[in-house]
Amino acid sequence: MTTPAATVDFWFDFASTYSYPAAMTIETEAARRGVAVNWRPFLLGPIFADLGWQSSPFNLQPAKGRYMWRDMERICAGLDLGFRRPDPFPQHSVRAARIALVGHGEGWGPAFCRALFHAEFAGGADIANETTLHAVLRGVGADPGPVLAQSGEPAVKEALRAEVEEARRLGIFGAPTFLAGAELFWGFDRMEAALDWAAGRRPL
Amino acid sequence: MTTPAATVDFWFDFASTYSYPAAMTIETEAARRGVAVNWRPFLLGPIFADLGWQSSPFNLQPAKGRYMWRDMERICAGLDLGFRRPDPFPQHSVRAARIALVGHGEGWGPAFCRALFHAEFAGGADIANETTLHAVLRGVGADPGPVLAQSGEPAVKEALRAEVEEARRLGIFGAPTFLAGAELFWGFDRMEAALDWAAGRRPL
Repeated sequence: MTTPAATVDFWFDFASTYSYPAAMTIETEAARRGVAVNWRPFLLGPIFADLGWQSSPFNLQPAKGRYMWRDMERICAGLDLGFRRPDPFPQHSVRAARIALVGHGEGWGPAFCRALFHAEFAGGADIANETTLHAVLRGVGADPGPVLAQSGEPAVKEALRAEVEEARRLGIFGAPTFLAGAELFWGFDRMEAALDWAAGRRPL
Repeated sequence: MTTPAATVDFWFDFASTYSYPAAMTIETEAARRGVAVNWRPFLLGPIFADLGWQSSPFNLQPAKGRYMWRDMERICAGLDLGFRRPDPFPQHSVRAARIALVGHGEGWGPAFCRALFHAEFAGGADIANETTLHAVLRGVGADPGPVLAQSGEPAVKEALRAEVEEARRLGIFGAPTFLAGAELFWGFDRMEAALDWAAGRRPL
């Protein structure tokens, strides 16, 4: 009997603000604990729509939105990460998520995710824009033309739909969410708790 | 010119789950940093009602609610705090909040708050119940009869309404919320960040 390696599933949406600092720091924090990270891009939009929400709660609840933008500034400053408020917010993240799924099969998935988050939240780039996607793909050593073509294929679209369904099944209601074994941890603030849990440091 | 003492305003609702671990730990964490705590009981209900919500988001969003109960178990276990899910949830906290305001003028306010949170979330007591309130008041050295009478006076009711209005004005949308200078920090997970900020350890 072998012990499976400690892993955390990192569920994120490219449109999600707090997913940005998580994406930029999770590998370092995970490595420090001997934990592996599974990058799981998904879409929050369909899950919000289940609740009748047509936009981000940060837009639907103005006080919460104002808080979040200030909190992001503080968090990014503390981590020495650039931060610009993307316009529009939230960004359309479906194409980016499909590309990330293609990248998982080719080895550049996590690098693409980090570079796209950086372009979006440090650079203010529109992540649905073809030029942005081309530049980020080239930056991680991928060939933009074939990748973008593949990302539009039915199998990739279906794979992303299946990921959203899996997120629903797991009870995921926001991003980032971290899954350690059967335990969910929601929010960037709980990332280290999830990694600790996966590494065997558990309060229960 | 004197430097004002570092303080954090701790805004909480007795019905709020995550306010419980905050109430039980904030004085220790604040003292460690030389920070003073202003206990600010208020009511989230009117603020949720502004958004059209007639109950807690943990009831309105079942996945978020299921997550919260498990997360509370983990957090309380990690802090060695007892935990029982109160029934009903959320509890009716208006009377408790008025009593806490009376207590602020008499010196037993924070002790009452901690004891009532403990009765509610470790003991499963109904905090709107007269017997519960009597027992907790006696436990902190207050005389239940006069205190309960005073808590029903117009001036105390008005003081609580003014606190809710102040919370709204500050942009508070959940509990616990910590105010350090002009900076809001929302959630038990951000309590230490707020105390650090008040103590002068600031990323910005």
